[in-house]
Amino acid sequence: MNKDRRHFIKNAACLTAGLTLATLPGVAAEASLQDEQESGLYLIGRQKGYTPHIGTLLGTMTMMRTWIVRGVEELSVKELDFQIDDKSNSIGAMLWHLAATERYYQLNTFEGLEWGTWDDEIKEIWDLPMGLGEDGREKIKGNKIKFYLEKLESVRAETEKQFAERTDDWLWESENFFDNLPTNNYAKWFHVCEHESNHNGQIKFIKKRM
Amino acid sequence: MNKDRRHFIKNAACLTAGLTLATLPGVAAEASLQDEQESGLYLIGRQKGYTPHIGTLLGTMTMMRTWIVRGVEELSVKELDFQIDDKSNSIGAMLWHLAATERYYQLNTFEGLEWGTWDDEIKEIWDLPMGLGEDGREKIKGNKIKFYLEKLESVRAETEKQFAERTDDWLWESENFFDNLPTNNYAKWFHVCEHESNHNGQIKFIKKRM
Repeated sequence: MNKDRRHFIKNAACLTAGLTLATLPGVAAEASLQDEQESGLYLIGRQKGYTPHIGTLLGTMTMMRTWIVRGVEELSVKELDFQIDDKSNSIGAMLWHLAATERYYQLNTFEGLEWGTWDDEIKEIWDLPMGLGEDGREKIKGNKIKFYLEKLESVRAETEKQFAERTDDWLWESENFFDNLPTNNYAKWFHVCEHESNHNGQIKFIKKRM
Repeated sequence: MNKDRRHFIKNAACLTAGLTLATLPGVAAEASLQDEQESGLYLIGRQKGYTPHIGTLLGTMTMMRTWIVRGVEELSVKELDFQIDDKSNSIGAMLWHLAATERYYQLNTFEGLEWGTWDDEIKEIWDLPMGLGEDGREKIKGNKIKFYLEKLESVRAETEKQFAERTDDWLWESENFFDNLPTNNYAKWFHVCEHESNHNGQIKFIKKRM
């Protein structure tokens, strides 16, 4: 902890002095040597228990998830069910949809299953929140925030477990996927992450109009 | 190019066979050795001209930007100006806002300026789209898509230039920022990226209702 503190103070001091650290290679190198002990929600980078790029990717996912949860954790059932119009998804449905998306990318990237070829019992659980739409609007209702957060957390725990068992090489494995172009696992998991932000934009839009 | 092709075919074949590559370390290692020659919108990772983590981060930013642009490049002036209600920002205003956000993060992370301490002449250019709100709703109107795309492109070109001049060490430099917690440059630039997705979610929401 002391080390983190010193590291941070040193950087902050340089920044306050208005120096462009990157133009002073010696200073930059000294001030920014990253070690795995350093941790913090907004210190994206290597993480204990993960290879460098997997740890970095997971850091962005954790930061994103924290911001999502912060925006919804106090919502009531009524607010989670609220629909702005008959085309819109409720915030509750979107949260479950994020968990479903992550679950399906797990099957695709961890188990090597072609998209959509999962077992019927998996589809039975996850196709409803994955698809959203009319069916989702009708059936996803009346759940407390705890219900959605538990879905998100349990799926994320599995992602973290699987990430810890892999090395960066796995990130570069690819198949034709987005736009039918070669797509590696990094791109897929970046999408899982930015997709949360996409819905977070909609969640914020809806919250302002409740 | 031939190398990319072979690389891809090998991976695709393994995936089609339903093998979990990561459980076969030898295969995974052979199939996924990433080299800098490999390129493609969805092959996130090292990039020629950038250090490993900067190239990877830039890859996610390029992927995100491509998806944003794809969703708006055919919009008319009327569509770019459309507002869903009196609280909402137009798609045009949001696009300019994304460029402004990136510009301000450039000043903060490349020039080491404390947030908001930029020169008045910079504020004069960028505060309007940065702030959005009522003033933006009134004044950001009547521009063709080209206007907004040029803003986005010219700011991004500067980001790429600055990224190329830095090393990964710069990514780990931090100051108290989000939530007043230590925040490194990676976290800030990840935010620039996910912030585009946040607004893309709103852009899609608005497009469905035009």
